[in-house]
Amino acid sequence: MQINLSIDGERLWASIEASAEIGRGPNGGLRRLTLTDDDKRMRDLLAQWAAESGFTSNVDQLGNMFARRDGTDPDLAPVLIGSHLDTQAAGGRFDGILGVLAGLEVLRTLTDRGIATRRAIEVVNWTNEEGARFYPPMLASQVFAGQQTAEWANARVDKDGLRFGEELERIGYAGSAPVGGRQIDAYFELHIEQGPRLDAAGIPIGIVTGGFPTRGMRIEIAGETAHVGPTPMERRRNALVGAAHVAVAIDEIGWRYAAGEGKTTAARLDLWPNLPGIISERANLFCDMRHPDPGMLERMVSEVDTALPDCARRGRCRVQIAERWGFGGIAFDAELIALVRAAAAQLGLATMDLRSEAGHDAYNMASICPTAMIFAPCKDGISHNEAEDMTQESATLAANVLLRAAVARADR
Amino acid sequence: MQINLSIDGERLWASIEASAEIGRGPNGGLRRLTLTDDDKRMRDLLAQWAAESGFTSNVDQLGNMFARRDGTDPDLAPVLIGSHLDTQAAGGRFDGILGVLAGLEVLRTLTDRGIATRRAIEVVNWTNEEGARFYPPMLASQVFAGQQTAEWANARVDKDGLRFGEELERIGYAGSAPVGGRQIDAYFELHIEQGPRLDAAGIPIGIVTGGFPTRGMRIEIAGETAHVGPTPMERRRNALVGAAHVAVAIDEIGWRYAAGEGKTTAARLDLWPNLPGIISERANLFCDMRHPDPGMLERMVSEVDTALPDCARRGRCRVQIAERWGFGGIAFDAELIALVRAAAAQLGLATMDLRSEAGHDAYNMASICPTAMIFAPCKDGISHNEAEDMTQESATLAANVLLRAAVARADR
Repeated sequence: MQINLSIDGERLWASIEASAEIGRGPNGGLRRLTLTDDDKRMRDLLAQWAAESGFTSNVDQLGNMFARRDGTDPDLAPVLIGSHLDTQAAGGRFDGILGVLAGLEVLRTLTDRGIATRRAIEVVNWTNEEGARFYPPMLASQVFAGQQTAEWANARVDKDGLRFGEELERIGYAGSAPVGGRQIDAYFELHIEQGPRLDAAGIPIGIVTGGFPTRGMRIEIAGETAHVGPTPMERRRNALVGAAHVAVAIDEIGWRYAAGEGKTTAARLDLWPNLPGIISERANLFCDMRHPDPGMLERMVSEVDTALPDCARRGRCRVQIAERWGFGGIAFDAELIALVRAAAAQLGLATMDLRSEAGHDAYNMASICPTAMIFAPCKDGISHNEAEDMTQESATLAANVLLRAAVARADR
Repeated sequence: MQINLSIDGERLWASIEASAEIGRGPNGGLRRLTLTDDDKRMRDLLAQWAAESGFTSNVDQLGNMFARRDGTDPDLAPVLIGSHLDTQAAGGRFDGILGVLAGLEVLRTLTDRGIATRRAIEVVNWTNEEGARFYPPMLASQVFAGQQTAEWANARVDKDGLRFGEELERIGYAGSAPVGGRQIDAYFELHIEQGPRLDAAGIPIGIVTGGFPTRGMRIEIAGETAHVGPTPMERRRNALVGAAHVAVAIDEIGWRYAAGEGKTTAARLDLWPNLPGIISERANLFCDMRHPDPGMLERMVSEVDTALPDCARRGRCRVQIAERWGFGGIAFDAELIALVRAAAAQLGLATMDLRSEAGHDAYNMASICPTAMIFAPCKDGISHNEAEDMTQESATLAANVLLRAAVARADR
């Protein structure tokens, strides 16, 4: 590899800044929920950039966008680099975006320098990584990895009752390519850390060895509507109170495991009818539990199971776990990790090995091909917040590691 | 008064059943939120019934509807009978509706029998009594009583951001008459009890001596958005967890006063952004406290004040009371109560004195004219629930007491 091979840090940063104008939040972050008009505008811009550089674009039936730079051997499976361009409702300018645009910058750099690779390299923008609009997160990569069907994804409904498939059609990104089902040689994803460790230690490159195991559940609380006035306390079955007991219990379980990096979140609570004059009869609480040690995570989950009957008794409601899910708990590919480590070493960059605590499309990809992730530091570890921030230098250094690792793999 | 004077129980029941078809809920109750198309249909029907019987209709600038049957002395202020035709989101067929349609039935009966009264009698349908769509409840009667301005009411906004004044225009019920500002001789309101006591005791008539004092508050909980994954427990400020601590504390205060008929409700909780992948930064909790003894109610309120700092500490959020309100705690007019008692005695009906625990437009009217309420039993005390129920016999007996009391006052 050329000793001075480097991406164009100015151009990468300008791409990130152009993205930050599409769906700009009131406090300088982004609100670019998947399959909205702003998501379409950002997708259009990515497609335009890819076309301007001569890359082939392809969109699959779930709106996953692929920009391809061919290799010299058309028989070899491509190396895939990617992340997502959708954001949280009050998200930042880097989460997901850095990974897609750094991938694009890698392709642009290879073209500028006239560097050929044996394998094609493709950049992917995964649809609905955040799960902020359609539940669950990492939706389209899950189908790409063969864990769910496209029909299942298309039938997901947002809070306003709009269907994923119809919204995808509406913005013009229901492509014709099948979702997945083709050979991928390797998958790389560059992402901000979304935690404070790299920033605190002043280390530019995080080598992600795997993902924290995560478990989630949707808990249904059933009470009974009644007038807030005359109904005596002993006749009340207030789903809001039942849900409050569950939220407190979940939070307390997180604190009991906090010293070992365990954490729990009572994340979303939907109540019905949720009006001032009436006691609510239904609640749905979405919870999330994480721990680096899978055995401890199982203990946390069983503490939740144990706590619920007491919440039901104190809240005088029926409480049951209606859905459970899990992700993470995987180890990334040793060969790809070695390529990332070698790339950082060539560039003289300090690295820290860590595990991702957030969900990433890379977890789904790891089930079908060798996968690795690179983390860049983000300021104070703040993420899923408009104040999310990083420096141009960090973005450049991390993209250079991505470039070297991806090219090394593509030449294999 | 004619000894056999009685309303037409069949006709009253048929009116209630016709109302029950407009905005019918999935379980046989009503979902007729104020200023919706269904509310307009019900208003149109009331206006049609009034016109068919030759009563004069009048609509004021907040959509309060008045149907008037003139008295023999045009210089005397009218007796007003009324309640409301709007319902909760999952409400019953009788709450409010009984009072308006029994008022109409009183007027119809007087006309059928050719009975003249000295004072005019008017029937009123108050706009937005429930507060289920526009906060606060008893909105338009509050303006009628001079406690707020029509501009204030018109500016109230529902959950979808629609304004009261615009919705009133939209359904064609923004009338031209000023809101209040005229002399009312007396106000009677017949209502279902919305509590279990009359039904349990088998007593047909409740004589309402006043209202339970009620205090409410909107509590704001401020946290910080962050990613549910990597953010360590000690850096989380989850507004949902803060609100859950408050809801549990409010509920526990209710239980401590339950033996003395005190009660508290954590009634409505709005969260933002309330999504699975992000910690919520804002919560608004609407709470409600009631106790028959005003001194004890003050103690309950001060227990809430005392509990909040601990909730803030445990939930790691800022917690503050953003709004407070109160109603009730009033005594109805002794002369009007005596008329109701005499009417029941003439009819040989057993009565029970009680205080209302719900809010009613009568509380606002009591600030500007002599006011009384009559309660009819409702099955098992169930209200603000589609299962709300009463018998035709109960409705007839209570309407007959209303008829006699109102006529006695109108002849004064």
